[in-house]
Order: sequence, then C-alpha cells, then structure tokens
Amino acid sequence: MAEEQSAARATRAIELVQFLDRLAALPRTGWLLRGVVDPESIAEHSLGVCVVATLLIDDLRARGVTVDGERVLRMAILHDAAEAFTGDIPMPAKTASLDAALEEAEAVLLARVLPEADLVLWREAEEGKTLEARVVKAADKVQMLVKALTYEQQRRGRLDEFWQNAKNRRHMDLDLARELFEELERLASLERAR
Amino acid sequence: MAEEQSAARATRAIELVQFLDRLAALPRTGWLLRGVVDPESIAEHSLGVCVVATLLIDDLRARGVTVDGERVLRMAILHDAAEAFTGDIPMPAKTASLDAALEEAEAVLLARVLPEADLVLWREAEEGKTLEARVVKAADKVQMLVKALTYEQQRRGRLDEFWQNAKNRRHMDLDLARELFEELERLASLERAR
Amino acid sequence: MAEEQSAARATRAIELVQFLDRLAALPRTGWLLRGVVDPESIAEHSLGVCVVATLLIDDLRARGVTVDGERVLRMAILHDAAEAFTGDIPMPAKTASLDAALEEAEAVLLARVLPEADLVLWREAEEGKTLEARVVKAADKVQMLVKALTYEQQRRGRLDEFWQNAKNRRHMDLDLARELFEELERLASLERAR
Amino acid sequence: MAEEQSAARATRAIELVQFLDRLAALPRTGWLLRGVVDPESIAEHSLGVCVVATLLIDDLRARGVTVDGERVLRMAILHDAAEAFTGDIPMPAKTASLDAALEEAEAVLLARVLPEADLVLWREAEEGKTLEARVVKAADKVQMLVKALTYEQQRRGRLDEFWQNAKNRRHMDLDLARELFEELERLASLERAR
Amino acid sequence: MAEEQSAARATRAIELVQFLDRLAALPRTGWLLRGVVDPESIAEHSLGVCVVATLLIDDLRARGVTVDGERVLRMAILHDAAEAFTGDIPMPAKTASLDAALEEAEAVLLARVLPEADLVLWREAEEGKTLEARVVKAADKVQMLVKALTYEQQRRGRLDEFWQNAKNRRHMDLDLARELFEELERLASLERAR
Amino acid sequence: MAEEQSAARATRAIELVQFLDRLAALPRTGWLLRGVVDPESIAEHSLGVCVVATLLIDDLRARGVTVDGERVLRMAILHDAAEAFTGDIPMPAKTASLDAALEEAEAVLLARVLPEADLVLWREAEEGKTLEARVVKAADKVQMLVKALTYEQQRRGRLDEFWQNAKNRRHMDLDLARELFEELERLASLERAR
Repeated sequence: MAEEQSAARATRAIELVQFLDRLAALPRTGWLLRGVVDPESIAEHSLGVCVVATLLIDDLRARGVTVDGERVLRMAILHDAAEAFTGDIPMPAKTASLDAALEEAEAVLLARVLPEADLVLWREAEEGKTLEARVVKAADKVQMLVKALTYEQQRRGRLDEFWQNAKNRRHMDLDLARELFEELERLASLERAR
Repeated sequence: MAEEQSAARATRAIELVQFLDRLAALPRTGWLLRGVVDPESIAEHSLGVCVVATLLIDDLRARGVTVDGERVLRMAILHDAAEAFTGDIPMPAKTASLDAALEEAEAVLLARVLPEADLVLWREAEEGKTLEARVVKAADKVQMLVKALTYEQQRRGRLDEFWQNAKNRRHMDLDLARELFEELERLASLERAR
Repeated sequence: MAEEQSAARATRAIELVQFLDRLAALPRTGWLLRGVVDPESIAEHSLGVCVVATLLIDDLRARGVTVDGERVLRMAILHDAAEAFTGDIPMPAKTASLDAALEEAEAVLLARVLPEADLVLWREAEEGKTLEARVVKAADKVQMLVKALTYEQQRRGRLDEFWQNAKNRRHMDLDLARELFEELERLASLERAR
Repeated sequence: MAEEQSAARATRAIELVQFLDRLAALPRTGWLLRGVVDPESIAEHSLGVCVVATLLIDDLRARGVTVDGERVLRMAILHDAAEAFTGDIPMPAKTASLDAALEEAEAVLLARVLPEADLVLWREAEEGKTLEARVVKAADKVQMLVKALTYEQQRRGRLDEFWQNAKNRRHMDLDLARELFEELERLASLERAR
Repeated sequence: MAEEQSAARATRAIELVQFLDRLAALPRTGWLLRGVVDPESIAEHSLGVCVVATLLIDDLRARGVTVDGERVLRMAILHDAAEAFTGDIPMPAKTASLDAALEEAEAVLLARVLPEADLVLWREAEEGKTLEARVVKAADKVQMLVKALTYEQQRRGRLDEFWQNAKNRRHMDLDLARELFEELERLASLERAR
Repeated sequence: MAEEQSAARATRAIELVQFLDRLAALPRTGWLLRGVVDPESIAEHSLGVCVVATLLIDDLRARGVTVDGERVLRMAILHDAAEAFTGDIPMPAKTASLDAALEEAEAVLLARVLPEADLVLWREAEEGKTLEARVVKAADKVQMLVKALTYEQQRRGRLDEFWQNAKNRRHMDLDLARELFEELERLASLERAR
C-alpha cells in the first residue's frame, strides 16, 4: 500500500519534470520573428531569469530589504510554465482582451498538471504584486535585454525595436533593475555605434 | 508623381512578402511538443495545404462540382497568416473563449498589414462556411495527418495522439477528404504494427 | 471494387503529397554556399513564389490583362518539383549543356510520380513562354531577391553577388516585377550603406 | 562617484549574466555521442535540475527535515558553471586524475568571473557533502535519467548504457530520489519492451 | 617582388582552403530525402572516406600489394570537390546522360579553382581505374553503408533502400572492402530484426 | 576459421570507423562560446587540416625538403581522435596541469579503441616534434584562422580574440605557414575595416 503510494508519487513527479522540460523544446518566438537563428529556448530564458533574480535578491538584502529568496527562485523557474501548452506568444501580439483570455485559459490548463502550491506561485508571478513577484517581473525584462545585447554583440540579428519598446523597461522600482536597464541601454548604443 | 506612386506600391508589396515570409521562421508547435526535432515551419505546412487543396479541387470537379480554384489556393496560402504575429498555438491549448479572443486579436493585427482583399479571404477561411473555405479546412487537416504519418515512417516521434483526436477528422463532407482520412488511418496502423 | 479504386486513388494522392513534401527537407543551396545558416527550404521558397505571384496577378488584372490565376498558382507550387529528386543545384553551376541534360533527366524522373496534368504544368513553367509561366518565372526571381534583402537586413550573410547577377533581374516584361526589382535594389543599397 | 560605482556594479552584473548564458550555447555532450540530434543545452539541463530539486526539497520537509531551499536552488543554478569554460566533458571520459586536475582548473577559471559567494556555493556543490549539496547531486542524476527516458519515448536515440551505468544511481540516501530512480527504471524497461 | 609573389601564393592557398571548406556547409542530400535530420555534411563524409581508405591501404599492403597511400588520401580528400559548386546530387537521380553532362560541367567548374595537380587527382578518382582510385571508390561506398548502419542503430531514419541498392556494393575486387560489405549487411539485418 | 578471422577483422574495422565518425557529431566548442551558430564539427575541422597539410607538404617539397606525405595526412585525420571521448575543450580553458592530465587520460582512452599503429601516430602528432607532426600542428592553426576569417566574412560572429591570441601563431618555422598567418591577418584587418 505504502509502496503503491510512493510509486504513484514518483510517477506524478516524473510527469511534472517532463511537462516543464517541454520548455526546452520551445523557442522564444520574439527572436525568431526578428531573424535570430536557433534562438534560446523558454527553458534557457528561465534559467537566465533565475540568475538575474539572484542578483536582485542580493541587492535588496544589501539595502536592508527582507525578501523570500526561495520563493523568488521558485517563481522564476515556473513563471513561463503555461507556455508548455501554448508556446511563446510574442508580446506585441497581445491585446488587453487577448491577454485576459490567455491568462484565464492558461490557469485552466496549468491546473491539470501543476500541484496546488505551484499553481499559487504561478498566479502570484502573473499578478506581479508581491515584492517577490516584482523581482521576477524585473528579472524577466532584464534577462531579455541582456540577451538582446548579446545577440547584437554576436551579430545575430537587428534588434532595434527591443530598445525602443517602453514596456520592456517597466518595473524600475527595484534599484538594481533600474541601474541595469540604464547600463544595458548605454552598452547597446555603444554597440550600435561600432 | 506616378513614379512615387509605383515606388510606394512596390514598397508595400515587398513588406507584404516579408511579412508572410515570417511563416518560414516559425515552427509548427504541435510537433515540437511531441519531440519532433527541427519540424516543418508554418510556411512548409501552408505549401502542403496548397498541394492537398489542388487534389480536392480536382476531385470536386471530377464529380461535377463547380469550385473557384484560385480562391481556394489564395486562402490556403493565407490561412495561417495571423501566426506571423502570434506563432503557432497548438490546438489542445485552445478553449472556446481563448479561440474567440484570439480570432478577434488576429483580425485586428492582420488589418495592419494585409490589403483589404486578403483580409476578406482570411476571414472566409476562418469561418469555414463556403465550399472554398471548407476545402481549405479539410486540406489543413489532411496535410497534418500526412505529415504525422511521414514522421512516424521516418521514426521522428511518437504521434499516437494525433490519430485519436477526433477534431482532426472533421470536414469529411468532401468525398476525397474522407477517403484520405480513412487511408491515412489504415497506413498509420500498419506503421504502428511494424 | 469501387472501394478498392478509391483506396488506390487515396494511396496515390498521399504518395504525391509526401513526394512534394520532400521539398520541406531540402535547403536552398545558394544560401548555404554563402554562409547563411539554416536557410529557407525549397518548400518555403515555393510558398513565397506563390505570394509574389498573387501580387503580379492582381497587378496584371488592374491593368486590364486577363490571366489564369489558378494556373499560375499551380505552376508556382510545382515549379521546383524536380528538385525533390536532385536537390537544389545552384544557378552559377549550370552550363548550357548541363541545363539541357538536367531538364531532360528531370522530365523523366517527374514522369514517374506526377499525374499527367501536373507534368504539363511543370513543363509549361520550365519553358516560360505563356503569360502564366512568365508570371511564375518573375515571381521566382522576385522572391529570391526579397529573401536576399531580408537576410542582409537580419545580418545573416553577405550576399553582394545576388545583386550583381544580371540573370536575377529578369522581369519577363511584367510592369510590377520591374518596379519590384528597382525598389529592391534601392533598399539593398540603403542596407549596404548602413 | 556613487554613480560610477553603480555603473561598475551594473557592468559586472551584466558580465556575470552573459557568462552563465554561455551554458545555453553548449550542448550536453553525452547525448551527442549517442546520436541524439540537437540535444538539450547545459542551461536546459540546469533548469531541469532546479525543477527536480524543488520536489526533493518539498519531500524532505514533508518528512520533517530542515533544508535551506534557496541555497539548494542557487547551487543547482551554478553547479555546471565551470562548463562555460570547458564545455561538457562526458563522465565516461573522466579518470580519477583527470577529475582532480579538472576540478582544480575549473576552480581557477571560475575565480576570474564568479563573485566570492557564488564560488563558495559552487565548491560546496562539487564536494557534495552538505544536505543541500546532496540534494543537487541527486537532482543532477534524476534529471539525466528523466531526460534519457524522454528521449527514448520520443525515439530520439538508443540510450541503453545510461540505465546500466551504476554511477548514475548514486545518492540514493534521499528517499524520493531513490523512489524516482526505481520508477524511472521501471518506465524505461516498459519502454524498451514496446 | 618575391614578397608580392609569396602574398599572391598565400592568397591563392587561402582561397582554395575556403573553397573546399564549402563542403562543410553542404548536407548529404540522400539522407535528407529519407528524413534524417541534420545529417552529415559532404566534408564529414569525406573525412570518413579518408578513414576507411587508410584501412584498405593497410590491408592491401598486408597482402603484399604496393599502393601509393598519399595519392589515395589526396583523392579521398578531393573526390567530392565538384559538389562545392553543385551540391550533393543523389545517385538515384542520375541518368547516364545526366552523369556525362555533370562530369563535363564539373571539370569546367573545378578548372577555375583547383591547381592543375589537384585536377589530375580529381579526374583519376572520377575515372576509378587505377588501384588508388579504386580504393577511393570502395571507401566511398563503405563509408556510406557504415553511416547508414549508424543512423539505423541511432534510430535516425528508415534506410532499407540503401541495403537493397546493388550499385552500393560495387568495387568488391578489394578483399577487405568485400568483407566489410558482408559484415555491414549482417549487422544491418541484425539491427532490422531487433 | 579464416572466415571467422575476417569477420572479426571487419567488425573491428567498422567499430573504428564508427568511433572516429563521432567527430562529426561534436561541434568545435570555441566557436560556440563566441556565438557562432551551428559551427563546424571536429570532423569538418579535421578535413580542413588535411587540405592545409597538402599545401604545406607541396611547399616543403618545392623547397627541396623531404617529407612523408602519407604520414602527415594520417596524423591530420587522427589528431583530434581523443575528442571523440572528451568533446572539444577550448584552449583558453587549459592550464599546464590540466593539459598534462588530459593528455594522459586521452592516451588511456584511445588505447582502448585505436590499433597500435594509429596510437603511435596520435602520440607523434601530440608531441609535435617530427617534421610531419609540425606540419600537422601548423595546419591545425592555419585551418582555425581561415575558418575565423570565413565566419567574419559571412558575418557569423565577432572573433577579435582569435587574432590577438599569440598561441594561435605558433609553428611559424614552416615558410608557407608563416606566409599564410601574415596574409590571414592582413585579410582579417581588411575585413574588420569594412
């Protein structure tokens, strides 16, 4: 009986790992649309968001702010989980009503595969209200702009739009995030001037 | 003046060709989610839909039915145009309300780039009511199942779900389409039995 | 009996779709030779030729010329069918005698797989004499130059030769094709000057 | 002055994110050597290790064990950081003396780019002695075997060796890890028997 | 003067290396047509032909036959040089008259880039009459069948045709080559029976 | 008996060809780390080294130097054989003690698969003392710089470091090699100035 239970638990765990592993097969569509060949996957992006998040956590703490680091990292890992169903839908394609319908559909889909605790984390990340969720939102944007800079430095595309799009610079209420956005813009214009 | 007009017309034409050429950079997400490596692009799928459509047109005519072949082919070329904005969102992810929101958003997005006549064709294909649109819908499904069979024959994935999904066999009111679905299922079970 | 016939017809139809689908696996060799990574397939090129062809058809009609649009599109779909046997042999490699031998070999090979009506269309496209075939020939060149421009804009290669090669600019006396070539050259030199 | 400092800090942060992002460009060599086409990158593997680690953390806590979840996740993110210099060197190639020389060289290389606190985490993960480091070691193996199972289910290779290699089943002192290894072996033999 | 000469010689040498390096960008078309994803390039094939050739040379010498090993290896390196112009045209597409026209065109094209001594080697390999050229022809076929076996063992395609095609087993007048063909067929049927 | 022996010999020969064919699956890591997408494999590099080696052999002979051409080519084919076990470990990652440990481990690994005569050749190439081995070492560097130039001309990366790294210009005691390095640097600075 106990053995059956543990086998069932192992099965569910493996299914969850395989479900999230789909993110390794799915490219970030925004890069594809701008001619970047073989761009990062959603999984590679998510790991980058984790890396940026650790920097933002350290900076908050250095400024005396208390932040739940494990919660931030768990949200960073899961924040794009719904894309394992839908693929990565590029931001410029999203209208307000599409956004709402998508979020509703995603919640329904994720409820089929994520344990309740993960679902709660995903929703918190989507809403972006708690400090921890705001760290993830900021890290999401910072990772994207670092990648845009890297692709430009490696001559893998022309990504001018990314630097003009105001939405990419949201969530500047975190000090380090704001500093990073400024430095990224400086480096990108240097790169453009070469 | 006439020269300026013709330059402007040429510019618009080139932009349209480049817009639809994005479909060559976007993979069919359904295959990616099932582990098919480097699967067909939306553009490659669309050309396959054109090919199937010519067969369905010929068959209709052989049975004495009048059908506007050029209109069918123009719809086949354009039927996934909106995915140049959104990427290919896999069918199982679509709820009724998401579908409605998506179609609305797509129409808004396409209105920015498609000439009016193309927009009309795209809407007709979406609605799937005219004979010509039904040919495109059937060709869309037939191409997908032929590709699933090909991938299985080439050992490029395990695609059992595709053959179980009832939605894939819709639009059987066209005789040849129905025959093709039956033959495809027969070939797929032969393949599975090897 | 009737059932057997319809199964045989379905089998043949599926084989034809699979045969032409090979074009999705074959890259355009000219881009590979110039260092473009993961370039378009012959199928993606063919869909682009269809798109350009619809623009040329519309323009001819706007000028009062009668053109069989369905015939043009069927030829555009099929015009590179022989490459499903031979792969894409780049133009600069072709001498007059090789061209003749190739066309002869291709006709023999295609006769094994294409229905008679399609063979007739393919030959008409090869010869390039009828108005419909000239539309396809012009669309073939326009698509190639739009793609060259796109690759240059995306920094995916150095494609200077494409703009120097006189053969690439055949417009087959079609007005819009000529305008497109002029605009494409203007855009390409702008791009080169950045 | 403060501004200069914050710019310098931002520069260092961006360099660190770019350094770890190299893991997205590097394939897991073990899969390549067994014929898996376009296999996961080290970054994709690392995200998978994070996912497995969250499950192991939850299980430990459910059994009343105290574990520093943030520390586990930071180690999971960083555990393959040295491969950004060396690439992924497959396990069977490693002799004891090569292993020692590699670890020494890696420590020297990482000291050039990682902040001190990250270096401490990386070393802890390498040594594998603390509970948190053992969670990462177990997650590292579990992720690999889940991926091997997935590739077999998707028919992307023949990976028999992975299931025979005893080293892959180390670190079974964690209950869930041991259960996962057993369930993975059961699923793999089911798959093999199909 | 001497300096100018040496610079010109260096330039020609670099151009030759770059010309033959094109073979690294060109896939072996026969594998693509059978659904093998990301197959070997012509360059990778040529290196494999070199490897097989060294084995055949050693075997000939062990049997007391004198063979010019350097000449064999130089021919193996160059034997597909013409494909840097034409791409790899699959064997089944070649009729006798196409073959003749191709060989003539290839000789003309290669004369533009290869030094006279290399041209002589390429022609000798094409004709396949000398012992050294026969070693290259046999190695060409052996490498292809070893690769077919490898792809089947790695489940990367269904390659039944390769084993049925009589032309693939030519050039068995070399003892080791004949033994290799026999062993390859035995291994391939074992593989098929799994 | 004789038959069994010849079957065993054929089996060993096929295993050797398959072992060295792994080099076709392994990318040159140095390019990956600099953002070159889908770079050359180790096998493609090795064929390029063969090509450069033939030029150096010809030049030595033109200057009256005796050189064993077959031995040079056999070493060029085998010089990276150990990477079939370890993958390509980029040069900047190698410290003196890692280098020593690697060479030792590689010798042990290769002894399992290479016939004695090949092992001797590989060691000679590693040590780089004989004229033949120095030709291979020089060809190894020349091929790398020609490829760096090619990637820059094709806009596939920013490879400045390669031209600054002194180690890359070793082995200039061969006249043509030295001339090639000088010409390559001239072409690379021309390219950079565009």
